[in-house]
Amino acid sequence: MATYNVDRPENVDGEDFSNYFSAYGFLYNQKEMLEDPHRMASYYNAILGNKACFKDKVVLDVGTGSGILAVWAAQAGAKKVYAVEATYMAKHAEKTAVANGFGDVIDVIQATMEEAELPEKVDIIVSEWMGYFLLRESMLDSVIIARDKWLKPDGAMYPSHATLYVAPIFDFTDDRRALEHDTALDNWGHFTEDLERKYGVKFGCLDASYKEECKQYFYQSALWVDSHPSQMLADRTAVKEFDILTLTLDELKSNHGGSVKTQMRMTPVAVENCHNAINGVLGWFDADFRGCPSNPAPKPVTLTTEPTTEGATHWGQQQFHINPAIAVNNDDTLSIDWEIRRQKQNPRLLEVTYKLEVEAAATGAKSAAALHHFKVD
Amino acid sequence: MATYNVDRPENVDGEDFSNYFSAYGFLYNQKEMLEDPHRMASYYNAILGNKACFKDKVVLDVGTGSGILAVWAAQAGAKKVYAVEATYMAKHAEKTAVANGFGDVIDVIQATMEEAELPEKVDIIVSEWMGYFLLRESMLDSVIIARDKWLKPDGAMYPSHATLYVAPIFDFTDDRRALEHDTALDNWGHFTEDLERKYGVKFGCLDASYKEECKQYFYQSALWVDSHPSQMLADRTAVKEFDILTLTLDELKSNHGGSVKTQMRMTPVAVENCHNAINGVLGWFDADFRGCPSNPAPKPVTLTTEPTTEGATHWGQQQFHINPAIAVNNDDTLSIDWEIRRQKQNPRLLEVTYKLEVEAAATGAKSAAALHHFKVD
Repeated sequence: MATYNVDRPENVDGEDFSNYFSAYGFLYNQKEMLEDPHRMASYYNAILGNKACFKDKVVLDVGTGSGILAVWAAQAGAKKVYAVEATYMAKHAEKTAVANGFGDVIDVIQATMEEAELPEKVDIIVSEWMGYFLLRESMLDSVIIARDKWLKPDGAMYPSHATLYVAPIFDFTDDRRALEHDTALDNWGHFTEDLERKYGVKFGCLDASYKEECKQYFYQSALWVDSHPSQMLADRTAVKEFDILTLTLDELKSNHGGSVKTQMRMTPVAVENCHNAINGVLGWFDADFRGCPSNPAPKPVTLTTEPTTEGATHWGQQQFHINPAIAVNNDDTLSIDWEIRRQKQNPRLLEVTYKLEVEAAATGAKSAAALHHFKVD
Repeated sequence: MATYNVDRPENVDGEDFSNYFSAYGFLYNQKEMLEDPHRMASYYNAILGNKACFKDKVVLDVGTGSGILAVWAAQAGAKKVYAVEATYMAKHAEKTAVANGFGDVIDVIQATMEEAELPEKVDIIVSEWMGYFLLRESMLDSVIIARDKWLKPDGAMYPSHATLYVAPIFDFTDDRRALEHDTALDNWGHFTEDLERKYGVKFGCLDASYKEECKQYFYQSALWVDSHPSQMLADRTAVKEFDILTLTLDELKSNHGGSVKTQMRMTPVAVENCHNAINGVLGWFDADFRGCPSNPAPKPVTLTTEPTTEGATHWGQQQFHINPAIAVNNDDTLSIDWEIRRQKQNPRLLEVTYKLEVEAAATGAKSAAALHHFKVD
């Protein structure tokens, strides 16, 4: 009886620190995020491209990690930066602040954001809180709590807005996943035969349970992908838009639970390229840095994680499979009702349910609505 | 900011269930253990090769998982089997019991062993509790607690004994690890140069911290290996032997903390094959099924995880690197003082410290003692 890492951690009260924060306690992981060029350029331009917004301001960096956003804020002219970090990484952030000549400007506070005490209110909150499919990790909760407690009434949030997007796709590698699924089931068959023959124990009674486990793993778990724009069969559609300055914690939690309708029209060229079929829906996000009404950013910046030909950010996109594929034609309309909830066992992870319907452009006929369940683990 | 799994989970009170047990809640993981032929044959022979020991007995299976040991105990003639399992896997064990015709004999109890209440004391406790390097996972604690609470005074433990072994080795693939280590440091150098040039932030102040992180990861973390017997440079030596029938929880915990001396003499042929050098120490275990004095097993069985030419068990061996390698000659004597402790942050994981000294057979001269620290994560 021996396993290394826990594949799919559950979560109950009090277990959050070790399950969640410890992943950010190693420089190796920080380095990976610091090597994401689009992430880096977006935050760099948002802060150092808008120095006027930061000049002489008091800034709070929620989850500073290696301390890079705090250093940029100081370089942009902030008179004081409070850099809050729960993990041991806080010690590194302190060194980085000193090494970059901002030992007096940046105060690193090793604490969770909920526990941290600042000596004053702040003009700007910067944070890189976005997870896969935007909402995974639920770190936005801590940012909203920080805003309500520490941001001055006319203060700014960086990013100021975030939007969750989706688009239907055809994934040419999807066959491989189906093959892996079928192979896993075949293996189970051989395994139970062997077990009975060699050791006299019948395990066939678990066939259905194993089949269900495989279905959940291969077909109901969202997959990290780096999709190519040519795989998209319609323009992107926004599922949810968040104004980080006004969003409440209640809204954020109920937004996850609420149902949202999206409609997309199939684009002719894409559909033809993709054998007139959809076998997945792709989800990703944009984050916008626009400042706030009283202190708008002269040069607004958008960090997008959408499919590009230049390679994915470390967030990539999340792919929700559709198996079997659904036939579509030019100009057909795809309607999807979305429900995004937090997982009960670990509220930092997500459960996504979507109901999908295709209306044929030629006849107006509607396909039967198909319901899909996914986990974003 | 996005990571998938937590690589190296920490642990504090109350977090044990999600971090530890959830790894055993999937049939996929159970299947992996049930496909380990040496593990399977050993338990099968220990139970069904000693039917006389089990006939009309009351048996407790600690951590039954898929329920296979419980079914074998019932097949061996047990009149009642209590199968305790903390995870959802208990539901599968129940089905397995019924499907194999032992619905009335096997009572599955979904609970941790510490919480489980049995209606009577038992004659035999069976359990597959062994982790990497025998002691990782600390599941033996629960078995000892079960024994003290539920085993009749003259009852038997399966396994009845366990031994932790070590041997010096030369690993021909060790260069690769050194190369990976050096590459990681090189990459860090390029990364910090880029960061300063592109984004104006100095990270050189973290060089030493990153170097230390790499050292811990590449050179101070025990590695799962499937070693070949020809890599061993001396006969195996026992570090610790455990009599599972008499071992106390206090002894178990203090055994982990106590220092133990081992001595090994280099075997000529092996040393010549291996360039007269040691670059690692290998650790593994045997588990013995001998029954107990009042109910001895007519056919004792040993489950060994030592290097063989037939391929590793799923436990493999744990390799502790020595870098740089140490020169040795035929008949030299290797002395090692061992300390095996539980990690403070997660007591299910281990910390191993060993002090190593070589006495030259030719001259009697002793090398300077070198101290090595490792984590078994």
